[in-house]
Amino acid sequence: KAGWSDLDIRAVDTVRVLAADAVQKVGNGHPGTAMSLAPAAYLLYQNVMKHDPADPQWLGRDRFVLSCGHSSLTQYIQLYFSGYGLELADLKALRTWRSLTPGHPEVHHTTGVEVTTGPLGSGLATAVGMAFAQRRVRGLLDPDAAKGASPFDHHVWVIASDGDIMEGVTHEASALAGHQELGNLTVIYDQNTISIEDKTEISFSEDVGKRYEAYGWNVETIDWRGDGDGETYVEDVDALLAACEKSRSASKPTLIILRTIIAWPSPTKQDTGKSHGSALGDAEIAGLKELLGFDPKQNFEVSRELITHVRKVKARGKAAHKEWDKGYKAWRKANADGAALLDRLVARELPAGLAKAVPSFPADPKGVATRAASGKVLGALAGVMPELWGGSADLAESNNTTMEGQPSFIPSEKQTREWSGGPYGRTLHFGIREFGMGLILNGIALSGLTRPYGGTFLVFSDYMRAAARLAAIQEIGVTFVWTHDSIGLGEDGPTHQPIEHIASLRAIPGFDVIRPADANETAAAWLAILQNDRPAGLCLSRQALPTQDPKVAGKVANVSKGAYVLREASSGTPDVILIATGSEVGVAMAAADTLEAAKVATRVVSMPCREWFERQSKSYQEKVLPASVRARVSVEAGVPMGWRDLVGDAGEIIAIDHFGASADAATLFREFGFTPDKVVAAAKRSV
Amino acid sequence: KAGWSDLDIRAVDTVRVLAADAVQKVGNGHPGTAMSLAPAAYLLYQNVMKHDPADPQWLGRDRFVLSCGHSSLTQYIQLYFSGYGLELADLKALRTWRSLTPGHPEVHHTTGVEVTTGPLGSGLATAVGMAFAQRRVRGLLDPDAAKGASPFDHHVWVIASDGDIMEGVTHEASALAGHQELGNLTVIYDQNTISIEDKTEISFSEDVGKRYEAYGWNVETIDWRGDGDGETYVEDVDALLAACEKSRSASKPTLIILRTIIAWPSPTKQDTGKSHGSALGDAEIAGLKELLGFDPKQNFEVSRELITHVRKVKARGKAAHKEWDKGYKAWRKANADGAALLDRLVARELPAGLAKAVPSFPADPKGVATRAASGKVLGALAGVMPELWGGSADLAESNNTTMEGQPSFIPSEKQTREWSGGPYGRTLHFGIREFGMGLILNGIALSGLTRPYGGTFLVFSDYMRAAARLAAIQEIGVTFVWTHDSIGLGEDGPTHQPIEHIASLRAIPGFDVIRPADANETAAAWLAILQNDRPAGLCLSRQALPTQDPKVAGKVANVSKGAYVLREASSGTPDVILIATGSEVGVAMAAADTLEAAKVATRVVSMPCREWFERQSKSYQEKVLPASVRARVSVEAGVPMGWRDLVGDAGEIIAIDHFGASADAATLFREFGFTPDKVVAAAKRSV
Repeated sequence: KAGWSDLDIRAVDTVRVLAADAVQKVGNGHPGTAMSLAPAAYLLYQNVMKHDPADPQWLGRDRFVLSCGHSSLTQYIQLYFSGYGLELADLKALRTWRSLTPGHPEVHHTTGVEVTTGPLGSGLATAVGMAFAQRRVRGLLDPDAAKGASPFDHHVWVIASDGDIMEGVTHEASALAGHQELGNLTVIYDQNTISIEDKTEISFSEDVGKRYEAYGWNVETIDWRGDGDGETYVEDVDALLAACEKSRSASKPTLIILRTIIAWPSPTKQDTGKSHGSALGDAEIAGLKELLGFDPKQNFEVSRELITHVRKVKARGKAAHKEWDKGYKAWRKANADGAALLDRLVARELPAGLAKAVPSFPADPKGVATRAASGKVLGALAGVMPELWGGSADLAESNNTTMEGQPSFIPSEKQTREWSGGPYGRTLHFGIREFGMGLILNGIALSGLTRPYGGTFLVFSDYMRAAARLAAIQEIGVTFVWTHDSIGLGEDGPTHQPIEHIASLRAIPGFDVIRPADANETAAAWLAILQNDRPAGLCLSRQALPTQDPKVAGKVANVSKGAYVLREASSGTPDVILIATGSEVGVAMAAADTLEAAKVATRVVSMPCREWFERQSKSYQEKVLPASVRARVSVEAGVPMGWRDLVGDAGEIIAIDHFGASADAATLFREFGFTPDKVVAAAKRSV
Repeated sequence: KAGWSDLDIRAVDTVRVLAADAVQKVGNGHPGTAMSLAPAAYLLYQNVMKHDPADPQWLGRDRFVLSCGHSSLTQYIQLYFSGYGLELADLKALRTWRSLTPGHPEVHHTTGVEVTTGPLGSGLATAVGMAFAQRRVRGLLDPDAAKGASPFDHHVWVIASDGDIMEGVTHEASALAGHQELGNLTVIYDQNTISIEDKTEISFSEDVGKRYEAYGWNVETIDWRGDGDGETYVEDVDALLAACEKSRSASKPTLIILRTIIAWPSPTKQDTGKSHGSALGDAEIAGLKELLGFDPKQNFEVSRELITHVRKVKARGKAAHKEWDKGYKAWRKANADGAALLDRLVARELPAGLAKAVPSFPADPKGVATRAASGKVLGALAGVMPELWGGSADLAESNNTTMEGQPSFIPSEKQTREWSGGPYGRTLHFGIREFGMGLILNGIALSGLTRPYGGTFLVFSDYMRAAARLAAIQEIGVTFVWTHDSIGLGEDGPTHQPIEHIASLRAIPGFDVIRPADANETAAAWLAILQNDRPAGLCLSRQALPTQDPKVAGKVANVSKGAYVLREASSGTPDVILIATGSEVGVAMAAADTLEAAKVATRVVSMPCREWFERQSKSYQEKVLPASVRARVSVEAGVPMGWRDLVGDAGEIIAIDHFGASADAATLFREFGFTPDKVVAAAKRSV
C-alpha cells in the first residue's frame, strides 16, 4: 500500500493545479495528461522508483522514460517535487526561450531527464533499448549475482499514451521486448482514449492487452474509470503500486493498462480532446481550483509545508543509495577487473591498444567491399572493447555486423541452429524492424556505459530516419551501419538502391555521415567514430573496392579529418581537383591516370566525411581544396545536392538525380555515368 | 475444391523449377519463397482472383499485392502463365538491365503488377489503402447495391512474409484495416519461419494470430507443415481455397496464416536461410528436378501443352469480364451522372470549374497561416471534386485537412461525438500512424480513380519518408500535407521543428516539395498539384503569413512555374536578388523595402517549388534569375543544403544548420537570424 497522507493527496492535487497554471501562463501546451497522471507520476517518484535526486547519474538508479513527451509537466513537476534542481520559477518559464522546461523533455538539458521524447513511440522504444543495456551491463560486470542482488540491477519505467501504442515503432520494440523477456521493463499505458481528434475510437479499436499478450508481455489492467463516467472515478494508487511492485520481479516485460480520464477533475474539460493540447482557460482553472480546495485567485500555489513533505524523497533516495553502496563496494572489492572496466566505461575512455587492434589491409587493385572490411574491423575490436556491441535488422551476413564468435543476446531457449548465445550475449538480432532497432540503439547509448551499433541497407535508413535524428538531437554515440550504399548493390533494383540517402542524411544537424573509399579508410573510420563518440552513419559498399595505398588511405589522421589528398597532382599546383567519396574514389583515381597522361595535373581528394572536414581549420581546408583551384569535379553515386558548395560555380558534379534500376552493378555504373571517362570529360570542361 | 488435374500439379512444379532456374541463370535472387508459394500463387491466379489478362486495367478486377516483393518470381511466373505478356525469355532475363522482370515488381513497368514492392511491410500497407479505395469508390458510384452485387465490388489479395509481419508499418496498417472492418481484404501470410538470419525464432516469437485477432481480423491457420518436419508436408490447396472463398464474403479483413517450408521440396536447401536469398546451385537444382520428374539437363523446361493448359485462365477471365459487363452496363444506364463521373475519373481529367472553385484571398499584412488557407481551399474543392479525399494522422485541426462538413470514412458504429460518418465517408482518420497513412494514401492512388491526401507535422515526414519515396518511384498523384513547417511552430521545440526536412525531401527524385508563401500561393499550389498529378509534399506554416498582392502571388501561372518575380527592383536591372520560400518570403519583402530605401535595387523571387522551377525553360529561368545578377541571397528556415546551386559563389545563404528550441516563434526567428536586418546585411555583402 502506498499509505499516502493528506499531504500526499494535496501534493497530487497541486500537480494538477500547477500543470493547468503553467500551460495557462505560456498560453499553450498540454495540461490534460499531466493532471490525470498526477497520482501515477507522484507514485513512481515517491514510492516506486529507486532514485537519488542528489546523484542523478547514480549507476544503480532506475530509469524513467516519459514516452508521451508532450506531457512534459508530468515529469517536470515531479523533478521539482523531488528536488532535482527545478524550482517553481522553472515551471513558470515553461516552453520559453532558454528555460529548463522546454515543450518536450530534453536529455542533457534538464537534470533528471534521461531521454529526449516527443515524437510518439520513440520513448517506449528507446526504453526497450535501456532494458537491453541493463541486462548486457549486468552480464559484463556481474553475471553471477542472484536476481535483484547485483548493484547493476535496475528497472526501466515508462509512461506511454494512446498515441505511443498506435505507432509502428512501438510494435517493433514491444515485440522485441517480449521476445527478449525483458523483466526489467514496465510500461504504464495511460489509456485515456483521448487524442487530438478527441475520442480515439475514431481510429483505434484494437484490444491492446491481447496484442501485448501476443508479444509475450504480462498485462495488468487497472481501471480508474470504473464504468467509464466520471461519477465513479477512483484513483486507486494502491492497485497501481501493487502492479508496479509485481512487475519489478517479473520474468517478462509488463504492460499496465491504466484507464484514466484525461484532465481529471477539470470541471467541464475532463475527457475531451481540447484538454489534451490547449490551455484550459482562466474560468476552467478557477473551477478546478475551487473543486480541489485551492484559492482560485492564486496561481502556482505551493505551500512551504508541502514542498518540505514531498522533498523527503531526497532522504529516502540518499538512504537507498547508501544501502546500494555497500553492495557496490563489495562488488568492487571482489571484482578488480570489472571495477577497472567500469571506471573506464564511466569515464568514457577508450581501451588502451585500441588503435593497434584495428587491422590494416595491403594495397590491392581488386580489394574488398567496405562492408566486409567493416566486419573484419568489428571482429578485431571484439576482444579489446567489450562495451562495443551490436547487430542487424535481419541482415547480419549482408551488413557484416557480427563480431565473429560472439554469442547472441537472446534468452537461452531461443537459440537457433544458426545462432548460439544467452541473455548476456553480444550479437543483437532485431528482426526486420529498422526503426525499432534505431531507437533501441539510442536507448542503449543513453543507458550509458556500452556503445551500440546496428545495421541495415542504406536505403532503409528511411525507415529509421527519426531514430537517427533523435540520436543527433541527443548527441549520443550511436553508429548506424548502412551497407549497400549505392546503385552498386545491383540487381535488387530501385526500391533497394539509395540515391538521395547520403545527401539527406548529411542534412541532419549534428550527424556524421561517413563513406569510406576502401578497407583501410573503413578501419580508420571506425576508429575515428569511436574516438568522436557522436552519432554516425557508416555507409558501406556491397561491391569490392580497390584498396588504395595504405600509407595514405589507411592513415587515421587523414580519415578523421574528413577529407585529404589521396593522390597529389604531378605538378605542384593542380589544374583540377577531383573530389570523391566511397566507391567513386576508385573511379576518380582511374580518371586521374588518364588526365595526367593528357598533361592535366590532377589532385584526387578522398572525402569520407564532409562533417568532419567542415570541422577542420580553414587552413587545413584550404590546403586540401585551395581556393585558387576552381576547376573541380565531384563524383558520388548519389544526388548532386550539396556538392555545389564544394565545387563552386566553375565546377562539375557527377551524380545521379533519378531512381536506379535492376541490373548488375557494372552495367549500372556504366549506364548511369560513373566512369573514369565521364570524370575526365567533366574535368576538362571544368578546366 | 480446386479440382486440380495432373497438369495443374505439373504447372505448380514447373513454377518451382522455373524459379530455381531463373535465379541460377542470373546468379542471384530469391528462389525459396517462389518455390514453396507456387501452389498458393497458382491457386490465386487460376482459381481465386477475378481478373482478365486481356484487360489488365479492367475496373472490376481483384487486386493482387506481393508484399514480399523479393519473391518477384512468385508473381512473374503467374503473369507468364496467365498470359499478361511476360514470356519465358523475360523470366530468363530476370534481374537484368531493362528486362520486364526486375528484382522487385514494379508498377507501370510490368503489365499485371499493381504496385511496386520490396521494402518490407510496404505492400501490405499499400493494399490496405487499395481496400479503402474500393469502398470509397463503391460509395461514390454505387452505394445502394447489395453486397457483392455492384460492378465496383472487388477484393484485394496480398501475399506477405514473416518480414512484412514484423515491420512497424504493417502493425499500423493492419490495426487500421481491422478498425475499418475491411472485409474486402485478404492477406495470405506465408509463415515459413525463415528469414535472412535463418530461423526467425532468433528475433520473432510473438503469436501473430492472436495479435491479428486483437486488431479485429478473422484469422485462419492452414498448416501445410504438419508436425513441422518435411515428412508430413501436405500442400492442401483445397483448405487454402476454402479459406480464400470464405474471406471474400467476410465483414472483416482476413489473415490466412499459411505454414510452409521455404524452398519446398528442394532436397537439401529447403527450410534454410540460404534458400531465401541465394541461387540454389546446379547440383541442388538437378536434385530438385529429378525429384519432380523434370530433366536435370534442361533449364526452363515448359511444355507447350502445359502453357496451353495454364493459359485457359484467359478464357475464364474473359467470361468473367463479360458477365461483369452486363451489370456494369446496367449500372451505367441507371446512373448517368455516375457514369459521367466515372468516365472523367478513368480519363484522369479534372472537373470543369475547378479553377473557379479555388478561393482567393485579399492582400493583408497580417494574413493567415498557409495551413489555414489550405483548409479553406480543400473545403472549396469538396463540392466540385468528389474524387479528392483525405485526412490526418490525428492532427485534423492542426493540419486543416478536413473538408468542412464532409462525413468521416468509418464503420457507422464507430462514429464519435466529434465525428459523424459512415463506411462511404470522405474524411480519413489515420490515428497516430504516419507511415501507415503514407502507404495507405499510395494504395488509394494506385487503386485508381480517386485522389488522396493526408496530413501530419512536417517533422514527422521522417516517419513516413519511405512512403513518400515509394510514391515517387511509382509516380502516383499523392499529396502529403505537412504543416508546422519550420521553427515557426514555436514552443513544441526541437523534436517538433523541421530543420533538414525541406532539403531532404527535395532530395527524393521525382518528388515535388511545395512551400507556399501565403494564402494565394497555397490556393494556386493546390491547383497546380492537382493538375500535375504527381507525388507532392505541401509544406505549410503554423503561423500567420502576410497575404501578398494577389495579382502577383495569387496567379496560378506564377506558382506553377515554381518561382517568379514577386517584387521587381525599382531600376530595370536588380542590384541583388532575394530568393525566398514560404514564411521567409515576407522577411525578404521587408528586407527589400529597406534595401530599396538604401538605393539597392532589389528583386524578390518567391520560389514555392524548386522542382517545378527546374522543369521550366532555360529562358524562363534566366528571366527570373538572370545570370548577370550574381548578388543573390536565399532565405529559408531550413538547412542551407542545396541553395548554393541558386545563389552561386557570390551569393549568401540565410539558413539554420542546427536544431531549434522551445520558445515562441517570434523569438526563434529573431534568435536564429531570420530577420529583415540579416537579409539586408547579407544582400550588402553579396553586392
